[in-house]
Amino acid sequence: MPTIAAIATPPGAGGIGIVRLSGPRSKALLARIFLPLSPRFENFRPWFMHRGRVLDQHGEALDDVLAVFMPGPRTFTGEDMVEIHCHGGPLIVQAVLESVLRLGARQAERGEFSRRAFVNGRMDLSQAEAVAELIAAPSREALRYSLNRLDGLLGRRVLALREELEALRVQVCLAVDFPEEEVECLAPADFGRAVGEVAHSVRLLLAGQKRAKVMQQGAVVVLAGAVNAGKSSLLNALLGRNRALVTDIPGTTRDFLEEACDLDGLPVRLTDTAGLRRPDADAAASGGADAVEALGMALSREKLGQADCILLVLDGARLGEAGAAAETCPDAAARQVLELAGDTPVLLVWNKSDLCAPAVFPPRWSDGRFCCMVSARSGDNVDALAQSLRQILLADGLDNPPSDGLAPNARQALALEEALAELEELEADVRAGRSYDCCAVRLDTAAARLGEVTGLSSPAEVLDRVFAQFCIGK
Amino acid sequence: MPTIAAIATPPGAGGIGIVRLSGPRSKALLARIFLPLSPRFENFRPWFMHRGRVLDQHGEALDDVLAVFMPGPRTFTGEDMVEIHCHGGPLIVQAVLESVLRLGARQAERGEFSRRAFVNGRMDLSQAEAVAELIAAPSREALRYSLNRLDGLLGRRVLALREELEALRVQVCLAVDFPEEEVECLAPADFGRAVGEVAHSVRLLLAGQKRAKVMQQGAVVVLAGAVNAGKSSLLNALLGRNRALVTDIPGTTRDFLEEACDLDGLPVRLTDTAGLRRPDADAAASGGADAVEALGMALSREKLGQADCILLVLDGARLGEAGAAAETCPDAAARQVLELAGDTPVLLVWNKSDLCAPAVFPPRWSDGRFCCMVSARSGDNVDALAQSLRQILLADGLDNPPSDGLAPNARQALALEEALAELEELEADVRAGRSYDCCAVRLDTAAARLGEVTGLSSPAEVLDRVFAQFCIGK
Repeated sequence: MPTIAAIATPPGAGGIGIVRLSGPRSKALLARIFLPLSPRFENFRPWFMHRGRVLDQHGEALDDVLAVFMPGPRTFTGEDMVEIHCHGGPLIVQAVLESVLRLGARQAERGEFSRRAFVNGRMDLSQAEAVAELIAAPSREALRYSLNRLDGLLGRRVLALREELEALRVQVCLAVDFPEEEVECLAPADFGRAVGEVAHSVRLLLAGQKRAKVMQQGAVVVLAGAVNAGKSSLLNALLGRNRALVTDIPGTTRDFLEEACDLDGLPVRLTDTAGLRRPDADAAASGGADAVEALGMALSREKLGQADCILLVLDGARLGEAGAAAETCPDAAARQVLELAGDTPVLLVWNKSDLCAPAVFPPRWSDGRFCCMVSARSGDNVDALAQSLRQILLADGLDNPPSDGLAPNARQALALEEALAELEELEADVRAGRSYDCCAVRLDTAAARLGEVTGLSSPAEVLDRVFAQFCIGK
Repeated sequence: MPTIAAIATPPGAGGIGIVRLSGPRSKALLARIFLPLSPRFENFRPWFMHRGRVLDQHGEALDDVLAVFMPGPRTFTGEDMVEIHCHGGPLIVQAVLESVLRLGARQAERGEFSRRAFVNGRMDLSQAEAVAELIAAPSREALRYSLNRLDGLLGRRVLALREELEALRVQVCLAVDFPEEEVECLAPADFGRAVGEVAHSVRLLLAGQKRAKVMQQGAVVVLAGAVNAGKSSLLNALLGRNRALVTDIPGTTRDFLEEACDLDGLPVRLTDTAGLRRPDADAAASGGADAVEALGMALSREKLGQADCILLVLDGARLGEAGAAAETCPDAAARQVLELAGDTPVLLVWNKSDLCAPAVFPPRWSDGRFCCMVSARSGDNVDALAQSLRQILLADGLDNPPSDGLAPNARQALALEEALAELEELEADVRAGRSYDCCAVRLDTAAARLGEVTGLSSPAEVLDRVFAQFCIGK
């Protein structure tokens, strides 16, 4: 097993940066670059922070550091590990890493520390994923799910179900191999009931899955509407309420502004579409939009398709215009958004209440959709808008947190859903009196799907895919 | 002394994040939120990494962590300190920090840990600055200067000089108070020689200061010229050579693109000016430029004034045009840049050699300036351009690294320069036979300036300013 090394702290400058090693040569490599400060130093005491200096290959000092040797197997990876705590400058941390690489350590791949932890039996796959999810958690509730999974609760629960299926499998085999013997024979009614109980347990694990997904990945809220409606100022107003928790989401396309915010514990990704630039009249008049505009529209369409809720922002200043009423659709741009929205909930937001607020304002539109009036500029009613948004998002099956705090992630949920489908078919087969031979195959498949949750029966490609999503140094 | 806390690792997501505490209640605060994993845990063993879990105020688990208690006074700040090593998710680290703040720790201000180290006599001001500079060091050479200063070499050297001045001061006082006694009297010739020796030592400390500044802050290279000359592609070509080390410099104005790169160990900040948008003909024709253009020009002027070297990029495709020669100024935009350049070295770069490369190309222009021909598109000759640029930058007094690796930073150099000026005046006074009374004042002033290097005689405002430049958590 080669010894691997990587920077374990976030990139950038800070007070402390950590280079981490794992593998049989960790301690030997540390000993070659580390000059202890204490004259009484004899050897690395396990889990003890030694002060000293890291030297480069010319014996020149790189940094004053604290170094820790952590002997396996009771470490994160299960192997001998070392941490070197440097000053947190990007160049220093990189130079210290290069020093250990030069001595023969290998740069760790994404998630390689976690993969070794999995391979060495320190954690199952759902626990390894929990580590990555802890780091990325956008909400306290998501933290809680990840911590519960890190504890191995989900893994143990799923493996217990898998063992029940395997016990059934043994009984089915006996019934198939010794059909004439009455001993240990599995009656179809008992078989069906047992399968039904496992299926029910799987269903419980999947309950609250939608809410858990939103809590872990954030609800996607798209702001749409004509540009002059004040979408961007509304985005700022919504973010301004929670400015401290605003973070940039990397990887957004150039044409969209995407920001994360927190609505009382509900993580939300707000996307400002730049698509519908022109008021309807122009759009109709100009006929064929040019290539760039077409691209923008396609992107808008894509974003609207991903939304958990759409904020359709309308220009409240136009309420005063002839023929414009607060309860009907004001323009073609808005109509287009409503068309594209399909089943996605839409919250209609009349902006610019500071310019023109009607005496009577309807809480719903003529088609029953929720409607509110705000002023992004003055901040009027923005809190109420945020509350409405939160209610709409949580109303859609998201209002119940999983009772035991055991929410599977998307990959785990897929495996559980496949297992559940197999179990439901199996129940039907048993009811229909199918042969136990045929039932045994379904039992095997369901058990294998359950095993994928903890990586027990996951092929190497799945593992590759899971660990490739981790960051370097984890 | 209140106990302070801050996140010590860089912002963002990574494998490990650290919350650091300093002050008398550090250990007590840790004990209140930390649940040790080991059943045999009794107390925190100094410098030992304990495994456990951090709980929030409701007793709910926040994260699995490693916690270290470091008893003062042999710590960074000189006080009791604690580090909590969490999973490196922004939300986790923030939640752990909030837990200790809720129990009564105070959020640390910028540089407050370092300030405490200074106040508690763990390091002098030049060492504290070295910590911040280590973190920000853009080159290996800068790292070296910072490490030497962290060792306290500079501080000790300067304080030794200060002591020599104080010893002289005692002798001067004796000579003033007991002019009739011949004992211990300081002859003007000896006085002058002694002052001269201190001045010489200060000059040695200041030698190599210019190079050290460039190595620590990066040389500023400004790309100027008309837009169609291909400045931006040249910027990319220069960065492309060293893409791995390219970093964004924050705080650049919107109208400039500023990127850091590394020319064989020489850190360079490349600034792409967007100012001279129009070729000379238009500019002359249009007469009064509008407000935005004027602003752009003012910014360009400012950037050119800060440059250590200017790359004047010219459109090589125009070399084929009638009247255009490789050794004369092609247009008004270029002439304007040359005017604004003043004494700053200018390297003339004919771009687009792939379009039109003359058979004979002059290495210098008619006015003696260096000149070269490249193709940003094909990458032709870009390496040679980078080498020329490096030579120009290093030729200007930058070619000699400080012999003892003891380069003061800008603040320290200013204090040293002021001390030097005072000492030179003092030498002149002694030669001119001024009274020792008057000399004593100059001795005091010079000693005070030297004391500012290590913070010995720095007023609180100076300390405020120095530590305000540090990052939070340092």
